[in-house]
Amino acid sequence: MSHSLQLNPDRLFPAEPSVRAIARRLYAEAADLPIISPHGHVPAQWLSDNIPFGNPTQLLITPDHYVNRLMHAQGVSLSDLGVGQAEFSEEQSRNAFRLLCKHWPIYRGTSVKFWFESTFVDVFGIDVRPSEETADQIYDQIAEKLASPEYTPRALFDRFGIEFIATTDDPLDDLAAHEKIAADPTFPKRVAPTFRPDKYLEPARPDWIELTDKLAEVSGVETGTYAGWVEAMRQRRRYFIERGGVSTDHSHADPRTDRVTENDAERLFAAARAGHINEVEAVALRRHMLAEMGELAAEDGLVMTLHPAVARNHHGPTFEKYGADVGADIPISVEYTRALQPMLNRVGTAEGFQLVLFTLDETTFSREIAPLAGFYQGVYAGAPWWFLDAPEAIRRYRSAVTDTCGFTKTSGFIDDTRAFCSIPARHDMARRLDAGFLAGLVADHRLEEDEAVETMVDLTSTNPRKAFKL
Amino acid sequence: MSHSLQLNPDRLFPAEPSVRAIARRLYAEAADLPIISPHGHVPAQWLSDNIPFGNPTQLLITPDHYVNRLMHAQGVSLSDLGVGQAEFSEEQSRNAFRLLCKHWPIYRGTSVKFWFESTFVDVFGIDVRPSEETADQIYDQIAEKLASPEYTPRALFDRFGIEFIATTDDPLDDLAAHEKIAADPTFPKRVAPTFRPDKYLEPARPDWIELTDKLAEVSGVETGTYAGWVEAMRQRRRYFIERGGVSTDHSHADPRTDRVTENDAERLFAAARAGHINEVEAVALRRHMLAEMGELAAEDGLVMTLHPAVARNHHGPTFEKYGADVGADIPISVEYTRALQPMLNRVGTAEGFQLVLFTLDETTFSREIAPLAGFYQGVYAGAPWWFLDAPEAIRRYRSAVTDTCGFTKTSGFIDDTRAFCSIPARHDMARRLDAGFLAGLVADHRLEEDEAVETMVDLTSTNPRKAFKL
Amino acid sequence: MSHSLQLNPDRLFPAEPSVRAIARRLYAEAADLPIISPHGHVPAQWLSDNIPFGNPTQLLITPDHYVNRLMHAQGVSLSDLGVGQAEFSEEQSRNAFRLLCKHWPIYRGTSVKFWFESTFVDVFGIDVRPSEETADQIYDQIAEKLASPEYTPRALFDRFGIEFIATTDDPLDDLAAHEKIAADPTFPKRVAPTFRPDKYLEPARPDWIELTDKLAEVSGVETGTYAGWVEAMRQRRRYFIERGGVSTDHSHADPRTDRVTENDAERLFAAARAGHINEVEAVALRRHMLAEMGELAAEDGLVMTLHPAVARNHHGPTFEKYGADVGADIPISVEYTRALQPMLNRVGTAEGFQLVLFTLDETTFSREIAPLAGFYQGVYAGAPWWFLDAPEAIRRYRSAVTDTCGFTKTSGFIDDTRAFCSIPARHDMARRLDAGFLAGLVADHRLEEDEAVETMVDLTSTNPRKAFKL
Repeated sequence: MSHSLQLNPDRLFPAEPSVRAIARRLYAEAADLPIISPHGHVPAQWLSDNIPFGNPTQLLITPDHYVNRLMHAQGVSLSDLGVGQAEFSEEQSRNAFRLLCKHWPIYRGTSVKFWFESTFVDVFGIDVRPSEETADQIYDQIAEKLASPEYTPRALFDRFGIEFIATTDDPLDDLAAHEKIAADPTFPKRVAPTFRPDKYLEPARPDWIELTDKLAEVSGVETGTYAGWVEAMRQRRRYFIERGGVSTDHSHADPRTDRVTENDAERLFAAARAGHINEVEAVALRRHMLAEMGELAAEDGLVMTLHPAVARNHHGPTFEKYGADVGADIPISVEYTRALQPMLNRVGTAEGFQLVLFTLDETTFSREIAPLAGFYQGVYAGAPWWFLDAPEAIRRYRSAVTDTCGFTKTSGFIDDTRAFCSIPARHDMARRLDAGFLAGLVADHRLEEDEAVETMVDLTSTNPRKAFKL
Repeated sequence: MSHSLQLNPDRLFPAEPSVRAIARRLYAEAADLPIISPHGHVPAQWLSDNIPFGNPTQLLITPDHYVNRLMHAQGVSLSDLGVGQAEFSEEQSRNAFRLLCKHWPIYRGTSVKFWFESTFVDVFGIDVRPSEETADQIYDQIAEKLASPEYTPRALFDRFGIEFIATTDDPLDDLAAHEKIAADPTFPKRVAPTFRPDKYLEPARPDWIELTDKLAEVSGVETGTYAGWVEAMRQRRRYFIERGGVSTDHSHADPRTDRVTENDAERLFAAARAGHINEVEAVALRRHMLAEMGELAAEDGLVMTLHPAVARNHHGPTFEKYGADVGADIPISVEYTRALQPMLNRVGTAEGFQLVLFTLDETTFSREIAPLAGFYQGVYAGAPWWFLDAPEAIRRYRSAVTDTCGFTKTSGFIDDTRAFCSIPARHDMARRLDAGFLAGLVADHRLEEDEAVETMVDLTSTNPRKAFKL
Repeated sequence: MSHSLQLNPDRLFPAEPSVRAIARRLYAEAADLPIISPHGHVPAQWLSDNIPFGNPTQLLITPDHYVNRLMHAQGVSLSDLGVGQAEFSEEQSRNAFRLLCKHWPIYRGTSVKFWFESTFVDVFGIDVRPSEETADQIYDQIAEKLASPEYTPRALFDRFGIEFIATTDDPLDDLAAHEKIAADPTFPKRVAPTFRPDKYLEPARPDWIELTDKLAEVSGVETGTYAGWVEAMRQRRRYFIERGGVSTDHSHADPRTDRVTENDAERLFAAARAGHINEVEAVALRRHMLAEMGELAAEDGLVMTLHPAVARNHHGPTFEKYGADVGADIPISVEYTRALQPMLNRVGTAEGFQLVLFTLDETTFSREIAPLAGFYQGVYAGAPWWFLDAPEAIRRYRSAVTDTCGFTKTSGFIDDTRAFCSIPARHDMARRLDAGFLAGLVADHRLEEDEAVETMVDLTSTNPRKAFKL
């Protein structure tokens, strides 16, 4: 016997009937608003070229480390899910999908289950619960849909109601896909690039000299000196701005922004170029460079987003076999108050400077992020991200930051995803949880319902527009 | 159209009807009990001289960094709110009040909104919601009240039902205002000074030599040696005790109490007096001095309260322009277990030694503070403070500490405020939240209702009396 | 007047009626399942020799630091509770019990109250609330029961429905009690030893040389070299496995597993044997040794459990007077991501390697433990432990880890107790709270009820069996 799969209209709302009734009303105000997705990982080529998606496994399993890591934690080989496989046959894909369906119970209580259920029902019209018995039936049904014109990237983009989406791009990317989209009158949507320069700020990387050489080549600015490096970065940021870019994204082991003197910056940079910078110096230079990004942000107005403090590729053998972004990144604790002080002292109140702080260390929500966002005009408390992008954590986030910085200084939801079909479900989850949180405030008389309605719409539409200058 | 402003009698109670009914009954037992305020920042002069308050902005906006920082975070200049302004005209005050009312929505979900709403309705009889349209009307109504004899500091003190209040004072203060109040038979209230010696324990301060000179002058004890400094402190503490003081308050970058040898203490002190102590040594001496305060507390019985771990004046340019206490203090993480061990090993079980631990780092509630309070007789878990003085955080606090140290080892609410008119609202918030938390325990049958009633009264009256030896 | 004492059948269930109804149904599925207790501190001798328990104080107060520390925090002397007393008369025992009953209100809101109430009512048939008035009556009633054959350790073991229990044992223990139990056909229960080698991994201990000498003597393997020490450990682990052992338990100041070279390990070991290892080197060697335990676990399959990061014997004078485990242990913060990386890189995906992570630092639940358990097949998120073994903390645990690692990678409840009579109450608490948490997921439509039923049974039975390889 297979169970049916349905989406309850009240999902994620508080259970108490009077609070649930308020949540329903608040949600209704935002449910159909366009999706604004100012940070994510959908490739622009999907939209510029509108190439139909491959099979269900290629779309829903192989590229999604949220999905894969939990099967890996049960002993499933990443290879069997298509990860790192140059060739992966249709039969292998079908087997991978069977593995997912067989392991369906391991996702109970996780947001992966919520996203999949929404995607299966709302996007693909599936009405049976995944299981070993139903795996093939679901696979076939999705495969059939993916072959139809209603399931091309652009068709889904329209159907999902996405108004704005940002991709994540290397500073040297020519952004041809973005240009192609912008020039195409048949697809009048805004797809913005995001400037993600992490590796150019890590002088200890073995390929850093090569990267700075390429930076010079592409920017047309000599990068033999630190001043040259800064100018090259300035040029490339300009290039992104001209192609619709609104933000830069930064993810390092820590968010410190200590500056060295200009002389020391040149000296450390020269050592790095010469290939003999040590680890401590490389970290010092990286922190200085991150602070420099703040200066440039104050200058050119690109919003700066920080996603620090993850031990990337925690399991060496997995990294060697499969590369990065396969589920083996583990968070570490982080400190913002002292770390950001040097940068905020210089540009924290500068006109146009905006900084969105994300974290995987929830302790910083009430202790550091909300107090910073509650004082500095340009600082926003970023939405819960990655491991925290789930109902319980999102509730804890609102509980942790609202007392101190209210609603207006929160970034609005970001989906940060490469799982294109889950985008509506992710934004829907956030809207349902915001409706539930606001309903709680109305129920205990901290807000009047008209105030909650206005806030509900703000969180969905106004806040991301303000935080990312849209 | 302007909205009405009303206070719902069930505010902050749990939404579930049966739990709410219990909360109502519990709250009713404590709602009218006198206010005990053992730590705060109301100037004693207000009560000794009973000078009428100035205009609404002078009373409610300019001195309150909770209120100002959130407007600053929206781009409002602190100058426009009267901060740091030697002159601030009636028209400027009215404009500042208009800024507050215009920005009313930014306070949604924060405790500032709760406090203001209670203050507006209960203290000043306002019945319209603040907005640009209603700003002048509200300003005028408050201004009119402030001019009447019912709104002098002493009249409000009576009306608020305050039984005991403590101020915060420099060790060299002559406490003339306190003496005047004590000698005045027409105001038979207890207003106690609090000994706050922070700056005398920071040998790295540029003015520290001058401060120790003044300490000698006022105490009549030579402070050329460390032993002299201790004796001078002992004398000033005695002076406070004789004028009703019950506690000392300490706020440093960390709460460590590592001791150096007596010889090293003398040597470091001599270096500091000679103006050539380095930063590391200055920290070492400060920690030793803080431990010394513990020794003196065990000796003279003043309750010791710790409020550590805030990066004060985080934004340099703001500090240079406006000075301290204007909303730019940002918390940092803190450690108590190891930090307090040296002091607690010496005086932790000493007769009469009492220590109340406050924190802005919520992680310490369940990990360190509750376990310490659950073992050492003299240690109390301080109420949520500053950024945590809000409904969500207060609920988290009770959830975090109760499992481990129960209710009896919590300090009772402290308002820690300079916003005089918000005092009743702050204590009312705590009582409502305690009633809600206890109602939850009754509802899931962890407490019988008679036990909850007794606890409710204890939290309001017994606990602060015990924690602060009233 | 004395109050009656009763156990409400709905205790710890959510208050909202529809959610409570679900919780009741889920709890009913697990309420009567056998107890699996894979980590605890009940002495095997109690079961091998089945010696009747002493008086109520000897059973319920003196050995239980959860109970004692809260009375100590009220100023009760540990001596008056029997702690550290070679002689403790019947009259003293009765007085200690009176102290407990007199202080009954201090346990409000703590799990001690819940455990005691369940024990009093369910195990001993008490029906009055403890108080000064009822103390003697309760004492007499329990004492009378303890004298009856229905209250011997084995009789209670049966009555409690315990299917499996693990003790905690020194590596050199001959496990005679375990052998006696295994050989006794009249008591066909499984009582497993646990290998707890902490002190043999602490080369800075004054008795470490003596301990390694004894290790050599008992294992029959020379421990003059590091390689010998490892081999001796291997032998003793084998000895435990042969007598039913399933896991090893490790509790150090930190959980770091940094390795040194084999040469350095030998060098440091030699220095330690020679009595001149310094503190830094001793820590380095301990971390290497802990990593070695991981290698051995991958080799012999014993499950490795980590319980780190407590400042043991925080109050020196108490330790000197009463020894260890008397309530003066205070948690400190802990880091797992970097700490475990060296070990997990070597054995993290090894067949048969299993690691259960416990913590007293709740910040690691969502930040580190759940992500690790959500990637590494062998890693399990351990149940809330010690100070966190209470309703509010257990709820926070499920909220913190489920998003990221679901239910299958959690260890199942462990009671970790020496309070034998509280075992059923502790497991019952966990089942009630799991039922409540799952009911919440059903109520907000994240789970269907059939999924929750299956999960409820898994958490109670399947998970501990998998995590501890039963």
